[in-house]
Amino acid sequence: MTIHQITEAECRLVLSRGSTGRLGCALNDQPYIVPVSFAYESDSIYVFATFGQKIEWMRMNPQTCMQVDEIENVTQWVSVIANGKYEELPEDDRPHARNLLEQRHTWWLNALAERRSRVEDLLVDPLFFRIRIESLSGLRATDSLQTGS
Amino acid sequence: MTIHQITEAECRLVLSRGSTGRLGCALNDQPYIVPVSFAYESDSIYVFATFGQKIEWMRMNPQTCMQVDEIENVTQWVSVIANGKYEELPEDDRPHARNLLEQRHTWWLNALAERRSRVEDLLVDPLFFRIRIESLSGLRATDSLQTGS
Repeated sequence: MTIHQITEAECRLVLSRGSTGRLGCALNDQPYIVPVSFAYESDSIYVFATFGQKIEWMRMNPQTCMQVDEIENVTQWVSVIANGKYEELPEDDRPHARNLLEQRHTWWLNALAERRSRVEDLLVDPLFFRIRIESLSGLRATDSLQTGS
Repeated sequence: MTIHQITEAECRLVLSRGSTGRLGCALNDQPYIVPVSFAYESDSIYVFATFGQKIEWMRMNPQTCMQVDEIENVTQWVSVIANGKYEELPEDDRPHARNLLEQRHTWWLNALAERRSRVEDLLVDPLFFRIRIESLSGLRATDSLQTGS
């Protein structure tokens, strides 16, 4: 197995093909990860989520990372990390985010609009935010037979 | 869509069925995530990895989380978070970890034993560590039609 870094352009391709990623946040040196649905556009990753620990944490520490991968098998995969700042979207910016997300997640948004999402007894409303990308990096593993020099 | 917390026993079932997870670590409030292959046993998650940023970071801050999910679709999924401490395995403990991991990842271990993994020009050796689980939590989303009270 050969692991090599991919270019920023390749990272952006992976983000543009992806629709589910893992969002990481941290508080007092404790990391936390949640799977999220997203849409990527230029230097932002738009996310549609419901309130919970991740939102609480990112409000306190906006430093996040989004990890998106395409795993063929354990020796053939690509994994991209986008580091960036959490920004909750004000009312005015939500239609744009909603449009982008609807291209990939229409029926989910519809489902949420029709029903109401519940975490135990708390009603939770959908919430839009973006990660403003500050750096991108990625690794690709290939099951190559070349041994190199 | 209904989201509810699952029991610790259910979390353990998800871990025991899983073989790929996302490992989160953090340094100076910056989170970092990598996909890893793992094997779960009682209160430990055993991981086989190659040296890289995650190892550097976890040596400096051993507080980690492992996120493992089973995603059917965006409204039907389960996601488990295991928080715990990073422990690099000394020589004596490696055979046990290797045995556990071999049950799920035999050919990968073989592949790595036969070839040598390369990150750019650095030869990297496989490395075994475990996450000693300190807390477990999980959420399940179901596309249920029940509206509750």
